[in-house]
Amino acid sequence: MNKNPLKFHKDLKGKIVVNSKKRITKDNLSLAYTPGVGRVSKEISKNKELVNVYSGKQNFVAIVTDGTAVLGLGDIGPEAAMPVMEGKAAIFADFAGVNAVPICLSTKDPKKIIETIKNIAPSFGGINLEDIAAPACFEVLAALEKELDIPVFHDDQDGTAIVVLAGLINAFKITGKNKESKIVISGAGAAGIAIARLLEEYGFKNYCLCDSRGTISKCRQDLTPEKEIVLAKSKASCPCADCSEALLGADVLIGVSKPDQFTADDIRKMNQNPIVFALANPTPEIMPKEAKRGGAKVIATGRSDFPNQINNALVFPGLFRGLLDSSVKKVTPKIKINVAEAIAGMVKNPTTEKFIPSIFDKNLASIVSGAVKNASK
Amino acid sequence: MNKNPLKFHKDLKGKIVVNSKKRITKDNLSLAYTPGVGRVSKEISKNKELVNVYSGKQNFVAIVTDGTAVLGLGDIGPEAAMPVMEGKAAIFADFAGVNAVPICLSTKDPKKIIETIKNIAPSFGGINLEDIAAPACFEVLAALEKELDIPVFHDDQDGTAIVVLAGLINAFKITGKNKESKIVISGAGAAGIAIARLLEEYGFKNYCLCDSRGTISKCRQDLTPEKEIVLAKSKASCPCADCSEALLGADVLIGVSKPDQFTADDIRKMNQNPIVFALANPTPEIMPKEAKRGGAKVIATGRSDFPNQINNALVFPGLFRGLLDSSVKKVTPKIKINVAEAIAGMVKNPTTEKFIPSIFDKNLASIVSGAVKNASK
Repeated sequence: MNKNPLKFHKDLKGKIVVNSKKRITKDNLSLAYTPGVGRVSKEISKNKELVNVYSGKQNFVAIVTDGTAVLGLGDIGPEAAMPVMEGKAAIFADFAGVNAVPICLSTKDPKKIIETIKNIAPSFGGINLEDIAAPACFEVLAALEKELDIPVFHDDQDGTAIVVLAGLINAFKITGKNKESKIVISGAGAAGIAIARLLEEYGFKNYCLCDSRGTISKCRQDLTPEKEIVLAKSKASCPCADCSEALLGADVLIGVSKPDQFTADDIRKMNQNPIVFALANPTPEIMPKEAKRGGAKVIATGRSDFPNQINNALVFPGLFRGLLDSSVKKVTPKIKINVAEAIAGMVKNPTTEKFIPSIFDKNLASIVSGAVKNASK
Repeated sequence: MNKNPLKFHKDLKGKIVVNSKKRITKDNLSLAYTPGVGRVSKEISKNKELVNVYSGKQNFVAIVTDGTAVLGLGDIGPEAAMPVMEGKAAIFADFAGVNAVPICLSTKDPKKIIETIKNIAPSFGGINLEDIAAPACFEVLAALEKELDIPVFHDDQDGTAIVVLAGLINAFKITGKNKESKIVISGAGAAGIAIARLLEEYGFKNYCLCDSRGTISKCRQDLTPEKEIVLAKSKASCPCADCSEALLGADVLIGVSKPDQFTADDIRKMNQNPIVFALANPTPEIMPKEAKRGGAKVIATGRSDFPNQINNALVFPGLFRGLLDSSVKKVTPKIKINVAEAIAGMVKNPTTEKFIPSIFDKNLASIVSGAVKNASK
């Protein structure tokens, strides 16, 4: 196969296609369309819940982005985000049979994003927010969770947090570390904040975050409300320092920031058997070889060409399958933790070579959707 | 086949499905999604026109409704509109390979409809407005045509106008009537106004409209701006009367209003060889049998169970195929007229039994899209 992504995309001209489930014929036109469909519409107008019985709303997901935080590329605009959203829609289709469509927005104003999504919500059974930069993403998610009666999930926040937790659960089994372990999260954007929040929910209290200006610590005067809250909740004493210094004696480094940020010497500062998740894409915060040279015991990246890929695609297809099938209105911490534990549980004997399941594991989507269903009972 | 539309819809649970064009595998994941897709996004960020080369934007159409004028059912809400929009999307897929998705809005405010559509436009190659009531639909269409760089088409306005014109062209061949003929349009909503506008563009000047309060005439003090303009442009002297009286000496009656509005006696008032298009759905303004009893020479309805079905599905799939393939930014009068003439031209020897092609004619979509291309050269 040709490995040039430009050619791949040019040849396909779109990675998804909308088909009719049943071909429209002379025989069924008057059922599928006028006049027969009128009777269906009339029924729904009497009880709008019936839209979930007579239409595909319950299996439609809008993948909504404003193009401000696309992959590691930043604010590249809604058009440039389109191929990423289509890729996601193709994964939704193939992995979990979810009908997902890209909605790339021409506005970056969180108020307008919220209003637009509320306005288009009646067609959809769920909203997957994608690649919306912090801090707008926090406001957008919180408002929509409050105001919509369908589940809203920001994959860059909670998708990442769930796979990281799944990975940590198994990395701890390998290293014998526990919930008291010191965790450093490099990156305090959508992913970093959501990881801290989920670790907190799970019972890890000893974590420090860093952003581009250093650690999120008491000596900082420039923290956003989200960072303030994370700092207030952490039981760790985070030094007034840069991220490299924060690694002193740390057990875990979770990188969700930028390429080539750490060296083997940084890893050497960590506690025994350190765990390093370097998830920046496509270039990690530290390459696996370099991390190993620094003594890292358990290593994961976001890339498919290294072992132990921590990728959101482990979560979102099955998660939405479960949300839609169980008519879940909100993604609760319990759902997130259940899903993380279920993904971790798929690797029976975690080793440094393999402690994360493959996103191509045929059971993945049904195990994840099952975990959602169990959590929402 | 079971002919119960409720069962048909319940069994299908959605009439469309989103599929990947190429199944996501271990081999192509890194091309279709991260990290490979990043290179594609980067290219588009440098030149956003490339979104039409590397993504499916150019073949995506949003079918947008606010649920205020669904079929003949009126303001039944966005959920109840969903099965109709899905039916339309299925027709788009099967007839013309257009990827169309329902967007049912929770707002009826024209300003908010406009803003919402502008905000979601970057993902789409065209917008099909659907079942939005007059007069909001006029404001929405005019604003979006002005502000978006993709084609916007309100099917209930111009789709109906185009098929009516196509039908009239052939009905005139059968009856020997000409552009001087007197035309009465019963209904001055989205369809009625758009029909008058297109007849005007085509060179028919002798037309009168009626709404629920009677003819649109100089004695009326309650006319909307759209009705005022239509009245000002018409060269007919429209009597201060009800619609039935306006039929006196008329050559053509076009009904886009409500069921059972006319009787055989009304048709008897018309000129020789009258043409009657009774397009209300599912129950026409006058049943074909009754119209015939009143002396109607050429009869059409909107129904598939009578001969000569005047249905928007003759137009919208091929029209969008043409708009998207030719990157047309605006649906001009020339495009509308070209399409109407092309559809009329498909019936070589129009007779009272058959003067409209079937929507299942295999050549229809390519003839219509060809007419769009020719008009936009």
